Amino acid sequence: MTYCVAIKLNAGLVFLSDSRTNAGLDQISSFRKMMVYEKAGDRFMVLLSAGNLSISQSVREILQVQQLHDAGDGKGDAPLTIWSATSMFDVARLAGAAVRRVYERDGAALQRAGVDFNVSLLLGGQIKGEGMRLFQVYSAGNFIESTAETPYFQVGESKYGKPVLDRVLTPDTPLNEAAKCALVSMDSTLKSNLSVGLPLDLVVYEEGRLATDRIVCIDENNPYFRMLHSRWGEKLRQVFDSIEDPAWNGGTTDVPIRVEPARSRPLKKITNPRDKLI
Amino acid sequence: MTYCVAIKLNAGLVFLSDSRTNAGLDQISSFRKMMVYEKAGDRFMVLLSAGNLSISQSVREILQVQQLHDAGDGKGDAPLTIWSATSMFDVARLAGAAVRRVYERDGAALQRAGVDFNVSLLLGGQIKGEGMRLFQVYSAGNFIESTAETPYFQVGESKYGKPVLDRVLTPDTPLNEAAKCALVSMDSTLKSNLSVGLPLDLVVYEEGRLATDRIVCIDENNPYFRMLHSRWGEKLRQVFDSIEDPAWNGGTTDVPIRVEPARSRPLKKITNPRDKLI
Repeated sequence: MTYCVAIKLNAGLVFLSDSRTNAGLDQISSFRKMMVYEKAGDRFMVLLSAGNLSISQSVREILQVQQLHDAGDGKGDAPLTIWSATSMFDVARLAGAAVRRVYERDGAALQRAGVDFNVSLLLGGQIKGEGMRLFQVYSAGNFIESTAETPYFQVGESKYGKPVLDRVLTPDTPLNEAAKCALVSMDSTLKSNLSVGLPLDLVVYEEGRLATDRIVCIDENNPYFRMLHSRWGEKLRQVFDSIEDPAWNGGTTDVPIRVEPARSRPLKKITNPRDKLI
Repeated sequence: MTYCVAIKLNAGLVFLSDSRTNAGLDQISSFRKMMVYEKAGDRFMVLLSAGNLSISQSVREILQVQQLHDAGDGKGDAPLTIWSATSMFDVARLAGAAVRRVYERDGAALQRAGVDFNVSLLLGGQIKGEGMRLFQVYSAGNFIESTAETPYFQVGESKYGKPVLDRVLTPDTPLNEAAKCALVSMDSTLKSNLSVGLPLDLVVYEEGRLATDRIVCIDENNPYFRMLHSRWGEKLRQVFDSIEDPAWNGGTTDVPIRVEPARSRPLKKITNPRDKLI
């Protein structure tokens, strides 16, 4: 599996991906899941992918060179590419079209082999003349866009790392704080799921720059990630210890776990075969 | 969906379940997912269930009255019930047999209706003369037992709340600390997944007691859970804030996120259609 997260803030964009790919448990390899497209001063875009690796590699290859002749803007048939598109929406259309081309080529054969046509993309960036935009593209080539209410998208093993994103992120979160939040989210995922692994690729993009130099590959020796991993683990444990344990007999606590009379009826024990279950 | 967790420690057992059941998003109801069987001084057992509600309710009904005539111990055919079994292993066999009886009755019709035969049970407790045991029973009626290396089992929406269990639990964890850990795990799950909801049922069992009075139903007014929810959220945020943000230009930090020379090659940007992807 994979874990990728992309965050859209007022201040910019954050992208983070792991690099583990597995087919079952005994074929584990390392593949990068992030692509960075940049024409400095004109456009900056990042693509993250999860799902079947053969599909996502083909999608990337096609996306890189693909020309769409239906520009969809009524301006005739100047071919649309990721390098000529004037909006991120059109780039998302190109990504969807690339997914559909791979489906046309491989879909039937994969189905015969019992393999799901499974790919998910996160695509975010900025093109000169437009604000930043972030999209999630599904296996059918359709896509949705992030809004202020939903400042992040995840693909792959997303559940382990979701609680911390929900607690921290809003559109006003500063860029480096959001990068830290993404790394904590990844750290929780790494801890609980074998199918997600180092190294990580992290990109931070500042609104309006149309280029970035904040790109880093984080392995087990990265000083920042090592600090974050050990501090978060340690401190979480301290917080956990600082919260009092439930006290069953009340009395000495302000926050009893058992209150009488209870509004919610406690479970009735079943004590013999003739007891009613409900 | 559902979230249930059961923990086996040297000191005892902890069981926690939510009570939300849904069929899609617009049919949400509240159903208890925990059953407590107790014959004080002789046996104490708890059953947690996730999956299709019609299946798990039938399993409970059958389990309550079922008699197996294959005792499997070569001692002839005295009927085996959850009230007469002399080991938790036999109770797990009864649970598996109950699942299989429901499958025989409903399996084909559910399949015709396109509904998966989906049920997962956690079954733990203690019978006089034996140590405590904890089992997970699958849809096929087969089951596994918890060991010291794996002190907990989860069913339902298990991923959101897994990281904190992995960080805290060992067989030596005290009973009430484990109960607190289960509640934190549930709190993270409630935050990130709509299909899991209050009230919660919590049971704490002390090794060797063969009965318990620590059974509570926790709703939104429970003083302990309210404290835990707000303290955990607040403190987690403080810990998050106490960790420094990544500093891209090094210099003032001991833990730069970018290190030169990098062992792991940072991603190459794609800057035009002729760039190589790999």
